[in-house]
Amino acid sequence: MPKKATKGLEDMFLDGLKDIYYAEKKILKALPKMAKGAESEEVAAAFEKHREQTEEQVERLEQIFDSMDKPARGKTCPAIDGIIEEGSEILSDYKDAPALDAGLVGAAQAVEHYEIARYGTLIAWAEQLGMKDALQLLRKTLQEEMETDEALTKLGEQGVNERAMQEAA
Amino acid sequence: MPKKATKGLEDMFLDGLKDIYYAEKKILKALPKMAKGAESEEVAAAFEKHREQTEEQVERLEQIFDSMDKPARGKTCPAIDGIIEEGSEILSDYKDAPALDAGLVGAAQAVEHYEIARYGTLIAWAEQLGMKDALQLLRKTLQEEMETDEALTKLGEQGVNERAMQEAA
Repeated sequence: MPKKATKGLEDMFLDGLKDIYYAEKKILKALPKMAKGAESEEVAAAFEKHREQTEEQVERLEQIFDSMDKPARGKTCPAIDGIIEEGSEILSDYKDAPALDAGLVGAAQAVEHYEIARYGTLIAWAEQLGMKDALQLLRKTLQEEMETDEALTKLGEQGVNERAMQEAA
Repeated sequence: MPKKATKGLEDMFLDGLKDIYYAEKKILKALPKMAKGAESEEVAAAFEKHREQTEEQVERLEQIFDSMDKPARGKTCPAIDGIIEEGSEILSDYKDAPALDAGLVGAAQAVEHYEIARYGTLIAWAEQLGMKDALQLLRKTLQEEMETDEALTKLGEQGVNERAMQEAA
């Protein structure tokens, strides 16, 4: 299998880029639904803020495709499909329930951690490949994802989880 | 919908426990395949070590189910199904290719981050619910998952990613 044997890190980087590009576009569609479904304004606002960030993150990925002279194209990513499906289940299973927002925050953190893992890996590969411009763009996005994850943790701690319990009594 | 309106944080905690229980059992089955498929001994050893840890993590979850007087039962988790499917794709798409191990390390880190997100959320909910024994067990597992993720990052940095590139030349 000579073709397969030549598949190196650059091919894998490009596959990873397509994976996260598909994922970001899926997330872009899911976030407004999660914002609309959220009970509290603060949770809805957090999702809306992240939707705006995600738009920029998609653009950064397009810049990287461009720098590689490759068309910006996604590749079906069963992982994000599954993670978003679990978020949709929360929305339907806990509709009007006191724990809804706590569940949505948890679902959003699963999304963030998927992105943190993938961007972390892409950064390690871009370092190895000496792709300086891509590195800068990927690091900026990773930083945002980590900040979003922390903000979600704080949202949970600052009332969302407490409300989930009190109202259930 | 009176039944739904009473769904509180404890229900959600139990749902989350079932989700990660299913996930851990899936991971337990996937790790030997990833270890067998890995090119280098160090990557195979890392997966084997984590398989042993995962067995203990499953037992900890069973202890928590037990403390809640609930049967240890998983609930299909489309997220981990998707994440593991992506790992299987790496195994087949990059079979005998120099970048295989770099891809497997990346796939394993996606698994770790899913677990880090879910255990982090379960810990926040257990704190809110005052479940002290569960907290201790969940924190121990979260610590292990974070250490595994760091060990995988180091594996990538210490040769796996470099080999993926050199041999591809």
